[in-house]
Amino acid sequence: MTPVTVDHANFLTSRVGDGGVDPARLSGELSDRFGEVHRDVEQRREEGEMGFFRLPYEVDTRRQVQEVADSFGQWFEAVVVVGIGGSSLGARAVAEALRGSLWNERSSEAREHFPRLYFLENADPDTTSELLAHLDLRRTLFNVISKSGSTAETMAQFLVVEEALRGVMEEDQLRGHLLFTTDPDAGVLRALANDRGIPALAVPPQVGGRFSVLSPVGLLPAAVVGTDLEELLGGAAEMEELCRSEKLPENPAGLLATLLHTAHTEDGRSIHVFMPYGDRLRALGLWFQQLWGESLGKARDREGRMVNTGPTPLAALGAVDQHSLLQLLMEGPQDKAVTFLRVGRREAPVPIPRSHPGQPALAYLGGHTLEALLDTELRATGEALRRAGRPSLVLEIESLDARALGALFMLLQIATVYAGGLYGVDPLDQPGVELGKELTYGLLGREGYPEPDLSGEAEGTVDG
Amino acid sequence: MTPVTVDHANFLTSRVGDGGVDPARLSGELSDRFGEVHRDVEQRREEGEMGFFRLPYEVDTRRQVQEVADSFGQWFEAVVVVGIGGSSLGARAVAEALRGSLWNERSSEAREHFPRLYFLENADPDTTSELLAHLDLRRTLFNVISKSGSTAETMAQFLVVEEALRGVMEEDQLRGHLLFTTDPDAGVLRALANDRGIPALAVPPQVGGRFSVLSPVGLLPAAVVGTDLEELLGGAAEMEELCRSEKLPENPAGLLATLLHTAHTEDGRSIHVFMPYGDRLRALGLWFQQLWGESLGKARDREGRMVNTGPTPLAALGAVDQHSLLQLLMEGPQDKAVTFLRVGRREAPVPIPRSHPGQPALAYLGGHTLEALLDTELRATGEALRRAGRPSLVLEIESLDARALGALFMLLQIATVYAGGLYGVDPLDQPGVELGKELTYGLLGREGYPEPDLSGEAEGTVDG
Repeated sequence: MTPVTVDHANFLTSRVGDGGVDPARLSGELSDRFGEVHRDVEQRREEGEMGFFRLPYEVDTRRQVQEVADSFGQWFEAVVVVGIGGSSLGARAVAEALRGSLWNERSSEAREHFPRLYFLENADPDTTSELLAHLDLRRTLFNVISKSGSTAETMAQFLVVEEALRGVMEEDQLRGHLLFTTDPDAGVLRALANDRGIPALAVPPQVGGRFSVLSPVGLLPAAVVGTDLEELLGGAAEMEELCRSEKLPENPAGLLATLLHTAHTEDGRSIHVFMPYGDRLRALGLWFQQLWGESLGKARDREGRMVNTGPTPLAALGAVDQHSLLQLLMEGPQDKAVTFLRVGRREAPVPIPRSHPGQPALAYLGGHTLEALLDTELRATGEALRRAGRPSLVLEIESLDARALGALFMLLQIATVYAGGLYGVDPLDQPGVELGKELTYGLLGREGYPEPDLSGEAEGTVDG
Repeated sequence: MTPVTVDHANFLTSRVGDGGVDPARLSGELSDRFGEVHRDVEQRREEGEMGFFRLPYEVDTRRQVQEVADSFGQWFEAVVVVGIGGSSLGARAVAEALRGSLWNERSSEAREHFPRLYFLENADPDTTSELLAHLDLRRTLFNVISKSGSTAETMAQFLVVEEALRGVMEEDQLRGHLLFTTDPDAGVLRALANDRGIPALAVPPQVGGRFSVLSPVGLLPAAVVGTDLEELLGGAAEMEELCRSEKLPENPAGLLATLLHTAHTEDGRSIHVFMPYGDRLRALGLWFQQLWGESLGKARDREGRMVNTGPTPLAALGAVDQHSLLQLLMEGPQDKAVTFLRVGRREAPVPIPRSHPGQPALAYLGGHTLEALLDTELRATGEALRRAGRPSLVLEIESLDARALGALFMLLQIATVYAGGLYGVDPLDQPGVELGKELTYGLLGREGYPEPDLSGEAEGTVDG
């Protein structure tokens, strides 16, 4: 049983007309092109890059993370992830998918004594002061996550948190409320961990932030709320194996990357809408948005030529955004391709009672379930788009559990590095964010960074 | 003092190069074009369309909503908005902006005895069953919001909620736990309200869903969490007055609409990123996404010609998405224009302690505040985009309060109808969502709707 299936029928010319992809090409030239990309990715893997491929098999890491989570879990009422971007989006996606949005409001018994889980991401003074005032700091663990140990927001939050802890405990107790996830050797967090005996987990060197959800970055927060890590990683491993195939129809990540890349480069569909049906998958969309956008949006290709390319990922939520974005998807420019995500089966389908038989606007709903309504809306939306000549595909998982989630993470990560190959860019770097960081350092007076002139006159603009 | 200022310096050719707009045109042809649109909008207003313009002045409605909120507020522990799209996004934006994300976790004392506020939007069985199990239904009010009374998700939720209430109370007590917000005359909710004595607020006929935040749709949920409605509407009224000017530089909504429309139609910037800096403004971005996308994404112009036009709004969050989308904004295709939203002053700036003077990655932060860091990041990001030849503008509010929020809602709504004029489309309709609704009805067996053929073969595709 495949952990995630890809139904691409509504992406084909036979169904969607000129806006689609000719199925003959998928077993012909597009398959050949994918074969080249697949070989290139395999080679970079073998050279030690793309460390995320190996994460499902790091059994020692999984055991270590589980031990840390087990030993902390019984002591703390709350765990706060202090991290931003790739250091928080993956853990958010796991916690929301598996624990839902009411987790933190539940009693300790209802949580089976697993801690509450919060995120301090932004350098937002309101969020920070409210959260620190809200928590019982003596019963809170702060998991500070930054691979480099230089992320401005996270380092600032760390300083604020450390000071807040000092307000309620002795200096030698601090280290019991801190857990770092950072580079195994370098950076200020590692140095502090070594100096002060603060426990620290390692982000493997060949794993970048947005590909780190299956490393301790995502695993520790997942484990503290009771996620079965073996299942999560098992699902990822299954998907990794499936994607060893260099044959296009059999490699789901290859199919996804090829369809979206083709729709963009040949048909102008530069906006890739990711639309899971189900509230618990909203955060997964934000995780995907970073992964796809930051990996593929590049000024230069791998030969150094200026290309300014990359699709724009748009995280949507079904059926909610049928009441928000569907009008644009149906009638706006032909510049979008939609990826739906369908959950086959829910824990409780929730029957809709037949309580107002005389009211036509209510009567037709009675006897169905909310699950069936949601699923019907997904089908109806795909069909409506098809009739408007707009391609879509459906990723489907059997049920929303740790195994399926692990498989989804791996599918989308692998699709991203394949898409990098198809676009001809390096999916692992992010050179475009450096300038903003340097300007921030300069404005804050960091040593070695000159104060920039923001008058807009002294310096011209550059083509970026 | 203007409630919202628009700083468009980084949108001008003088700063951003060819990617910007020539300032001379803003007082010339673009101003003339805006003048025409302004006159057209004024005319539609006078003919009774665009009812949202009048909402700030509906004093009787405000008093009625406040009375309902006051009388309910003391009895209920929780209020659940049952609504989707335009029936929930505005209230979400208000509650998140003014009450933050921890509101529902607070004790009744910390909430000054205002109720918790939840939203049942999606036809999601997990969300629904969890929320209904979580709440004490005997102390919960359900505000069911649907202008038409035919929204499938909301009607299904209503049936499920009603049944759940029946499980814990007598039939004659039900109406005390329901409050409808719907059309003043038509639809099933109005009929049930009349038949059973269920209290019901009216959505004014000339106010569409996505323009309804300042009607009882948004006002009632805002009031139950203690929002000062007079301030909210006062800010909106101030902005409405400012936008009576037909002179482009003086009309902030006109300036916003003109710059974004010009960037799209003349320079291919079809993706309009809306990026407030501050966690409490995330939901405002989702509200704007519906407003801008659904109003402007249209197949036909007002003369009935097929145009398939409309910008794609992308809701982002600063500084979080500097670690997610900024790479793409900096280096990807020149197809985006960014609108930042800046909050001038926060309740508590949160000092960053100087606790690790020997560590360069930490030392430069000490002595600043989180507020200054967040604000510096906004400036640095705008400057980095400028140097890459990418235009942005900054909306600025003095502080994040009800008055500023009311002004922002009105600014963005008015900008939307101006943009409708510039794009030549009707910003008030949404014909593209009908097909999906009909297919859903057909698949669920609603009387009068044939079961559709989803095989993809019987019917061809149409250009939509």
